[in-house]
Amino acid sequence: MINGEYADRLNRLQNELRARDVECAIISPGPDLRYLVGYDAVPLERLTALVVRRDQDPYVLSPFLEKSAALASPIGSLGLDVQTWTETESPYELLHRHLGDLSTLSVDGRMWADKLLRIQAEFTATATLSAVPLISALRMRKSAGEIQSLRLAGEAIDRVHARVPEWLAAGRTEEEVGHDIGKAILAEGHVTADFIIVGSGPNSASPHHEVSARVIQPGDAVVVDIGGSMPDGYCSDSTRTYFIGEPDDDYLRDFETLHRAQVAATAHVRPGVTCESVDAVARDILTEAGLGDLFIHRIGHGIGLETHEDPYLVTGNTTVMETGFAFSIEPGFYREGKAGARIEDIVVCGEDGAIVLNNRPRDLIVID
Amino acid sequence: MINGEYADRLNRLQNELRARDVECAIISPGPDLRYLVGYDAVPLERLTALVVRRDQDPYVLSPFLEKSAALASPIGSLGLDVQTWTETESPYELLHRHLGDLSTLSVDGRMWADKLLRIQAEFTATATLSAVPLISALRMRKSAGEIQSLRLAGEAIDRVHARVPEWLAAGRTEEEVGHDIGKAILAEGHVTADFIIVGSGPNSASPHHEVSARVIQPGDAVVVDIGGSMPDGYCSDSTRTYFIGEPDDDYLRDFETLHRAQVAATAHVRPGVTCESVDAVARDILTEAGLGDLFIHRIGHGIGLETHEDPYLVTGNTTVMETGFAFSIEPGFYREGKAGARIEDIVVCGEDGAIVLNNRPRDLIVID
Repeated sequence: MINGEYADRLNRLQNELRARDVECAIISPGPDLRYLVGYDAVPLERLTALVVRRDQDPYVLSPFLEKSAALASPIGSLGLDVQTWTETESPYELLHRHLGDLSTLSVDGRMWADKLLRIQAEFTATATLSAVPLISALRMRKSAGEIQSLRLAGEAIDRVHARVPEWLAAGRTEEEVGHDIGKAILAEGHVTADFIIVGSGPNSASPHHEVSARVIQPGDAVVVDIGGSMPDGYCSDSTRTYFIGEPDDDYLRDFETLHRAQVAATAHVRPGVTCESVDAVARDILTEAGLGDLFIHRIGHGIGLETHEDPYLVTGNTTVMETGFAFSIEPGFYREGKAGARIEDIVVCGEDGAIVLNNRPRDLIVID
Repeated sequence: MINGEYADRLNRLQNELRARDVECAIISPGPDLRYLVGYDAVPLERLTALVVRRDQDPYVLSPFLEKSAALASPIGSLGLDVQTWTETESPYELLHRHLGDLSTLSVDGRMWADKLLRIQAEFTATATLSAVPLISALRMRKSAGEIQSLRLAGEAIDRVHARVPEWLAAGRTEEEVGHDIGKAILAEGHVTADFIIVGSGPNSASPHHEVSARVIQPGDAVVVDIGGSMPDGYCSDSTRTYFIGEPDDDYLRDFETLHRAQVAATAHVRPGVTCESVDAVARDILTEAGLGDLFIHRIGHGIGLETHEDPYLVTGNTTVMETGFAFSIEPGFYREGKAGARIEDIVVCGEDGAIVLNNRPRDLIVID
């Protein structure tokens, strides 16, 4: 990443501010800050903020004791001014003195409510808005470098899935299997294991189950949905469904339908289609097979510096797909109390269709 | 933790709502939710919220696909009603339908700004406030069980500090030392290593430095400030200062002053003193020795389910100390570009004074 890319992102954010008639964006530590200026600051109670106005140089407001850390990030070489505040000052008052009474200001979507409420209490004459639409307009369109980052993350999590059959066995608990997977997520190059779902038997029917003390049994479907963050912050996320022993015909038939729906949705991806249409393609196939009511979540979410970010592939999202959009395609079905299944890949919208970043076999993986 | 404790916390929150004339608290995933009902939900873009009103039973609003996860938490055995929303509904509209037009509602301090802004857009007739003062009133006063949790966390991080001299040596980078410390934080019983500061030489003068590729040199002061979260969510945080080779007399004299200031501030802790007075005790000692301007941060922060939480021990905080308050005492001095030092323990306010939870020697630890 050269600094030119950060400068370009800041310029594009200023363009978004102008286009949407918003005077200012205040960006606190989190993925937006990392995206815009490469500063991976830990979100803490003291206000750190990148301040971006339409026609003035962006600057950073930092607690005095974190100035060195800010300057050690790309902020230093970008030449951004760093204004500091000390322990007995109010950074919110300082911000108000710097900016005056704006008509509108926007804040990053992940800012802590406590900070936003303090900003609102200080800027009483100002309408506060979410900066999510402005920054998503940038972050949704991944650069070649970002796509490469997501590709490496995808390969790393594929290597973990390749090893899951070593650990998954009747008689072990979900927690034990999850522990092995967590170590492998780190060993394969991630710096954090962000989530580990090992949903066995009835737990496979709870989409956001994590792990439990449940002992895995013969006859269990096991949904394994795992991901982590790479050193550059880009995330992986992939799901495969395993089965302990021989599945019955009904489950196999449903799984084949799911597989078909996942492949069809992926094939549908290309510039110009709407985000919701990708969901609809899979949902129609599942509905036709009587599984529509069991597909209880949207088909996917954007991914990049966050596991879940714009665009969301959900009914009602008419955003038109562009090259560089990166997102999951993960239909599932869930029979409450019985069994579920999910197949998930990360996909990038390329000029000629989907570029698929997870490439382990998508079939039901039978563990003997 | 018995469910009776969660029920008691919910009752006390309702008392706070009545006492402060706030109609409702909306608590999203994060430490407040974990504290109040034991649900350690991952903060994601879909709204999950505990809704607490003054005179009605609390309930949980959950995405439909996370209902099983919510019920698998203590929420299930507490008997709280779980209302769900599906992917094509707006949870904010649903909340508004449930609650009607309130005059005031409060939100947890960590709620994402994007969610708060959606609540504000929906509840246009309602004043939104921070729930931090209400919930801090509960969380600041640690129970015997919480103090025991913090004690175990303190013992775990003490065991890591005991081993730091094995890894800290001239010729190694801060990153290499930090990597060893990170593994030990997990090996000693934490589930996450939350922060690892290895500030060597000039980096020791940057209080929130993390680790870098800098090679540690003879003659370096090294500030090692480390902590993690235990399986029950309670955090550790302790700093010791190491020195590679023989420190000069000036540094040693300054360090002895710092040590004296840390001990004096700890000795000052007892019910009835103000939070700011603990800071002042250390600051006066450092100022008298000419180090006041180099002590650029407050003396401490509360700790519990978050590393930093109320009460903050800072000039201007006149909150009166009570038994059960738990916080850090961590004076430091920082000569920019040269060297710094910090000594930090976690302390609980007991009836007869400070109960100190970190007990490694506080002297400068010389690495030969």
